[in-house]
Amino acid sequence: MKSLSTVETHILKRKIEQFLEEDIRYGDITSTLLENLEVSAKILSKSNGIVCGIQEARIMCDICGVQILFSLNDGDNIQKGLEIMHLSGKLHDLLIMERTLLNIMMRMSSIATTTNEYVKLINQSKNTVKIAATRKTTPGFRLFEKRAVLVGGKGYSDTHRWSLDDMVLIKDTHIAASNRTIPDLVAFAKSQTSFSKKIEIEVQTAKIAILAARSGVDILMFDNMKPSIIKSTIQKIVTELGNQRIPIFEASGNITLENVSEYIESGVDVISTSQITFHPEKSIDISLEIMD
Amino acid sequence: MKSLSTVETHILKRKIEQFLEEDIRYGDITSTLLENLEVSAKILSKSNGIVCGIQEARIMCDICGVQILFSLNDGDNIQKGLEIMHLSGKLHDLLIMERTLLNIMMRMSSIATTTNEYVKLINQSKNTVKIAATRKTTPGFRLFEKRAVLVGGKGYSDTHRWSLDDMVLIKDTHIAASNRTIPDLVAFAKSQTSFSKKIEIEVQTAKIAILAARSGVDILMFDNMKPSIIKSTIQKIVTELGNQRIPIFEASGNITLENVSEYIESGVDVISTSQITFHPEKSIDISLEIMD
Amino acid sequence: MKSLSTVETHILKRKIEQFLEEDIRYGDITSTLLENLEVSAKILSKSNGIVCGIQEARIMCDICGVQILFSLNDGDNIQKGLEIMHLSGKLHDLLIMERTLLNIMMRMSSIATTTNEYVKLINQSKNTVKIAATRKTTPGFRLFEKRAVLVGGKGYSDTHRWSLDDMVLIKDTHIAASNRTIPDLVAFAKSQTSFSKKIEIEVQTAKIAILAARSGVDILMFDNMKPSIIKSTIQKIVTELGNQRIPIFEASGNITLENVSEYIESGVDVISTSQITFHPEKSIDISLEIMD
Amino acid sequence: MKSLSTVETHILKRKIEQFLEEDIRYGDITSTLLENLEVSAKILSKSNGIVCGIQEARIMCDICGVQILFSLNDGDNIQKGLEIMHLSGKLHDLLIMERTLLNIMMRMSSIATTTNEYVKLINQSKNTVKIAATRKTTPGFRLFEKRAVLVGGKGYSDTHRWSLDDMVLIKDTHIAASNRTIPDLVAFAKSQTSFSKKIEIEVQTAKIAILAARSGVDILMFDNMKPSIIKSTIQKIVTELGNQRIPIFEASGNITLENVSEYIESGVDVISTSQITFHPEKSIDISLEIMD
Amino acid sequence: MKSLSTVETHILKRKIEQFLEEDIRYGDITSTLLENLEVSAKILSKSNGIVCGIQEARIMCDICGVQILFSLNDGDNIQKGLEIMHLSGKLHDLLIMERTLLNIMMRMSSIATTTNEYVKLINQSKNTVKIAATRKTTPGFRLFEKRAVLVGGKGYSDTHRWSLDDMVLIKDTHIAASNRTIPDLVAFAKSQTSFSKKIEIEVQTAKIAILAARSGVDILMFDNMKPSIIKSTIQKIVTELGNQRIPIFEASGNITLENVSEYIESGVDVISTSQITFHPEKSIDISLEIMD
Amino acid sequence: MKSLSTVETHILKRKIEQFLEEDIRYGDITSTLLENLEVSAKILSKSNGIVCGIQEARIMCDICGVQILFSLNDGDNIQKGLEIMHLSGKLHDLLIMERTLLNIMMRMSSIATTTNEYVKLINQSKNTVKIAATRKTTPGFRLFEKRAVLVGGKGYSDTHRWSLDDMVLIKDTHIAASNRTIPDLVAFAKSQTSFSKKIEIEVQTAKIAILAARSGVDILMFDNMKPSIIKSTIQKIVTELGNQRIPIFEASGNITLENVSEYIESGVDVISTSQITFHPEKSIDISLEIMD
Repeated sequence: MKSLSTVETHILKRKIEQFLEEDIRYGDITSTLLENLEVSAKILSKSNGIVCGIQEARIMCDICGVQILFSLNDGDNIQKGLEIMHLSGKLHDLLIMERTLLNIMMRMSSIATTTNEYVKLINQSKNTVKIAATRKTTPGFRLFEKRAVLVGGKGYSDTHRWSLDDMVLIKDTHIAASNRTIPDLVAFAKSQTSFSKKIEIEVQTAKIAILAARSGVDILMFDNMKPSIIKSTIQKIVTELGNQRIPIFEASGNITLENVSEYIESGVDVISTSQITFHPEKSIDISLEIMD
Repeated sequence: MKSLSTVETHILKRKIEQFLEEDIRYGDITSTLLENLEVSAKILSKSNGIVCGIQEARIMCDICGVQILFSLNDGDNIQKGLEIMHLSGKLHDLLIMERTLLNIMMRMSSIATTTNEYVKLINQSKNTVKIAATRKTTPGFRLFEKRAVLVGGKGYSDTHRWSLDDMVLIKDTHIAASNRTIPDLVAFAKSQTSFSKKIEIEVQTAKIAILAARSGVDILMFDNMKPSIIKSTIQKIVTELGNQRIPIFEASGNITLENVSEYIESGVDVISTSQITFHPEKSIDISLEIMD
Repeated sequence: MKSLSTVETHILKRKIEQFLEEDIRYGDITSTLLENLEVSAKILSKSNGIVCGIQEARIMCDICGVQILFSLNDGDNIQKGLEIMHLSGKLHDLLIMERTLLNIMMRMSSIATTTNEYVKLINQSKNTVKIAATRKTTPGFRLFEKRAVLVGGKGYSDTHRWSLDDMVLIKDTHIAASNRTIPDLVAFAKSQTSFSKKIEIEVQTAKIAILAARSGVDILMFDNMKPSIIKSTIQKIVTELGNQRIPIFEASGNITLENVSEYIESGVDVISTSQITFHPEKSIDISLEIMD
Repeated sequence: MKSLSTVETHILKRKIEQFLEEDIRYGDITSTLLENLEVSAKILSKSNGIVCGIQEARIMCDICGVQILFSLNDGDNIQKGLEIMHLSGKLHDLLIMERTLLNIMMRMSSIATTTNEYVKLINQSKNTVKIAATRKTTPGFRLFEKRAVLVGGKGYSDTHRWSLDDMVLIKDTHIAASNRTIPDLVAFAKSQTSFSKKIEIEVQTAKIAILAARSGVDILMFDNMKPSIIKSTIQKIVTELGNQRIPIFEASGNITLENVSEYIESGVDVISTSQITFHPEKSIDISLEIMD
Repeated sequence: MKSLSTVETHILKRKIEQFLEEDIRYGDITSTLLENLEVSAKILSKSNGIVCGIQEARIMCDICGVQILFSLNDGDNIQKGLEIMHLSGKLHDLLIMERTLLNIMMRMSSIATTTNEYVKLINQSKNTVKIAATRKTTPGFRLFEKRAVLVGGKGYSDTHRWSLDDMVLIKDTHIAASNRTIPDLVAFAKSQTSFSKKIEIEVQTAKIAILAARSGVDILMFDNMKPSIIKSTIQKIVTELGNQRIPIFEASGNITLENVSEYIESGVDVISTSQITFHPEKSIDISLEIMD
Repeated sequence: MKSLSTVETHILKRKIEQFLEEDIRYGDITSTLLENLEVSAKILSKSNGIVCGIQEARIMCDICGVQILFSLNDGDNIQKGLEIMHLSGKLHDLLIMERTLLNIMMRMSSIATTTNEYVKLINQSKNTVKIAATRKTTPGFRLFEKRAVLVGGKGYSDTHRWSLDDMVLIKDTHIAASNRTIPDLVAFAKSQTSFSKKIEIEVQTAKIAILAARSGVDILMFDNMKPSIIKSTIQKIVTELGNQRIPIFEASGNITLENVSEYIESGVDVISTSQITFHPEKSIDISLEIMD
């Protein structure tokens, strides 16, 4: 993950301000009971995994007037008990951001860690597959969830579509509603869509897959197909079309840490799963501790 | 759950518009390839549980120009295969809202269902406890997550604080930073806080709990204490203060479906857990199916 | 009044920017006729009272690039002719913020001063009553008006509800519409409302007041009742319920500086009046003077 | 007052929504305790004066789903006890808008009524003077306060500048900072300012007034000058320049209902005072009553 | 051009409201001098070309309460004197939207017409080339300018990138800054970018073009190259790589109506030019005429 | 052009942030492929004319974290090849702002240069006329287009109305709809409009012009009238009314660089044309070049 440019940080800052306002409204009526002392604080991991949300925490500290004395980086490994950041500032400034900071870091780290679990399995194989997110994200928080997928993937993950205008993705619903044959539909999509966009098609059978590949789609998504059938289908397509003309192959549909290894071996280029963003299988707990 | 007033629906509508925009940006470049036929669509449950997000779906249908021919209500039981809503409208209008609709309904239903699991255990006991959420929510989505807790709880759930200005909640950090004795700190909080706000204190030992109860706090939170110790502490407090002067008792800290029954029996009035909102233990899957 | 945390200042800044934009639109077409010299300016009081809006002025100076060489603090006493702030900066920067700055300070200081007049009468008595605002505020400016009440009250004032979700406040309209007895209605409210919220009831007679107190409401509001009747009602309630179980007592309804002393003596804990925010009885005039 | 065009109503609606949100936040937790019955409601005057805010109330009823069965119009006379509007709708919809509706109507009606008091004095004289507001308004609420001035004035009032870009208004501060003679400064202002804008100058003495009039300003403001001196100064200017070339004459500075009559007789065209908007001398009380 | 889905219209409406507010601010102070009669109005073309902005006009009429009695469609041919729309409504509603309506329609129609001029030349040839816009658009108005390109192109135009996240487009600056060979850079881009995005490279010489094509880029942009050289380069690439593996070819750089025909014959698939959006070579004038 | 006050810069900054976000969305996916080196960059003119948008570029550099080592000022003359600004910063920060920066500067410079062409013709004559823009601007970008007119005019240009509330401008449509004589309509406008606003009337014939001038309008607009007729009409009016009582004279309607000289000689004070903002006759090309 490259760091953000200055203006991207600026844009992110405004979203984080909104998150802070959601929690603060008219103010923290508990912290104002205390003297506003200068203190330091530790952000501590209570789980093992991959940390994410550091960049967001940096922006939040900037908004809240808090100094960062030490910090891990996004994507670093964490263990239970490890110090993630060491902060310094006014007590009120630290306490008022605590909950929002932890909510962001815990959710992003859970996603990054889950993504990384998939990547570990890839690394154990000899294949070069990528793990991709889907658009199954929490409304209003997609930007952060997709970013956590990138951080956790360490080069083996993919955001997939950020939004509906990112790619043509023809699903069974579209095929059914189109009254066209697969070759016709693909040709029509190519003629109607900007040359800057890719065209992907979702298939449920080997037969349709081969038809679609012949039609020249950019990406072929095997939806809820068995790894063995995916494997044999890819072989048929490669045999027929040759190495240069084949589409990118994506597997999707109920893929979890339990069964992903079979898909890794199936020959696809990309495996997409909503598990990593919607109900991350690994959960990271993080706490903030004020020091005297 | 009472239905929203007209202006509250109006306010909610604006948030939902933002969620739609996040997914749509410059438009759905796949659906525009199809004829924009009048179709109908079913929203189907793929899990057993409690449905939530119906109200949000109604607002989304209003924004997207889709008619609702049939609908369950928020809080209704669902089983795998059950039709939740039956919609009618233009194909593009249905497809463009599909992902955002399902993301909202699935997350809200997962929270409502998990909350309801806790409530089932309460109903099996003879106690009148409430299950409360915490502020551990997804940034930007708290309104929806807290509402799902209410829907799923069916009268036995509680939103707890929406934000930091909702109540004084004195935690160990505050006590440590205050340089005051518990009675002093409670008295100080009472004198400094609006009479319209309650004052809660978080305690880790029976001794501090009794001190705090004597000081006249409105709510006493037993944080990470064993149910048996909570039980005996409550008995001591009731004995000393009498039934009329006792605070509301809340248990909190690592409470899950596994161990909640012991807390239900401990004599507390409220059990709070972030499990129901942050990583809901039950996950509800929902799909949208276009009909010919 | 404690100072704001950094992020609260940040949030306030955005509201103040909107106020400045309301007055500036496409720019100050008079000041641009002048050389943009470095000058200093005095903010001078033209009345006696309590100054408020200093914090807002600090934020405005930050937005407008103006230095503060000297400043009183919120809540300080002012007399006619006293210098409140001494500023330094470019002539245009000072002139463009002048009107908005004075509008904020004058209105906030008028409210703070009026609140303080009530507090002076409290201090003359031996009672510990608080003066509370109501929700009768200028739309869009409530945050500032409530804050001025706190500043002027110097520990003897209260913001009351910031908004409709801050407390249950059962008024005669609600009682009439509920078709329930007072005890039933209070019990129902307790069962339906988050444990984190207080329940207040507004009563017009001693009889209803006693019924409501028995029902365990958190706060009892005597609405438009004579101080003598309030006094005797409180005595009856204390006699019946004992010191520990009694609610907080609030008096409300047409209370002004003329008649507030009688209410101070009535035994209530809180006196609420919209006089302090909606038509403050004391008016503070403030001017800005450019120095050569 | 002409009625607003459709799009202006649309723009106003958004501001009013913000006012409603300020009061509602997460909802009216008291009204939800009641059955949501269909009821009617009366808006009743508790004072004598001029009603204003009807248009805003219409928009608010539209937002809140409330029907208007009867309504007075902006600018109508009201007496204590008179019904201003008769509304019909769901109980929650009426109760949730009550406070914001009354806050707007009471403040606007107070301003309209105060403005009208000035106009009554004008009508008693044989002069055709207009009463103008200033920029001394409540931040964020200027649009409504200026509109109330127009409603109350019934053809004899003027909004004056809405913002700093509406007119060049050269005050003593500008003159002092400019290092130019009056004629030079006026000529310079004319050359630097769009031909679409008027140029006004504020003067404190007869001598400067005459100099400024000769320089061809569009408007001459007599600031804190005695009516008798204003009168004689105007006569000198008219004598020197003739009827056709004279500027518009405005009187300003500490003008109240007490002393305005002298200014009405002084020969000026416009009298401006912040009394009508900032601390309206007349205060209108209005209530909402739910009917069975 | 397919029509927009309901929610897309909804999103567009908010942008158009902002445009209207820019022109209206506190209201049309001229039209309020007139009786607000029911009138009709004609929108008339004063030029020959392609009309665009009809959809925006429909939304604006909806915002402003104006009925549409007759309307052409986006993309229809217009001639000087032709009626484009026939409207009916209140005089104020029509006059207040006039300028913004015409500004949108005139700019969009100028772009659509210019785009169509290029398409006419394509249609005269036997080639199937598309005319694409660039990101050289008016800040804040890109959505409308890109849409006009689509309308005017009638199937032969392309929006190109809407924003920087739409595609990887490697320009000479990037190549120079990368310290990599072309094949390395393309391989690196493929490994670092989501599989859902295309990779385009800009080349200035035949030699680099061939290198890049071999590297497997999705699109090859000939930047400021002579049509004859483009033609021979394409032939070499096709010969070497065969029909199936060749990239999409785009020509760009100082292409105008004067010289575009040579590029149409060069064998490229796409010709991009900022002429159609930034300084459209054809200008369409449109007026609104109120009818008695 | 005077420089902006601090708060005006602040307001402008927010608009420019929106422009940047339009182009960036989720980020520049090409630049992140490069090392984020410290580089410098030149902004170079590719045309001769007047530069404008420097102030906007300064704000954009501030947002994007880019240093300015050298810069021309708004209004400076530029020639092909001249360096306008010299920037220094991170490569990503420079590349991400490049397109938006150039889009703003090119459009503003084209407008400034075109305006200046008119002014050159004025300077060649002995007349003191001003060139004014109209409200024919790009929706959402008016602020920048009007500012460019001021920069390019160097004291001889005028923004004319920023919006509909800036002046009463009675056009033929209004006259026709009013059912009043010219003198009646002007008198009515004066009585209904704030004294702070000017009243202009648009006339098509000498006869109406003279009627209107007699009625005391502030500005008389000769709409689509021949310069010779304008000249003779002005003479008649001056003769009749004398030098002191005459209105400001404005010529408008299809005035271009071709025919403006005749209007300059006609005796008018202001010439307004939408050519300078809507389709600027001179087009300025500017590029950004990264230096090693």
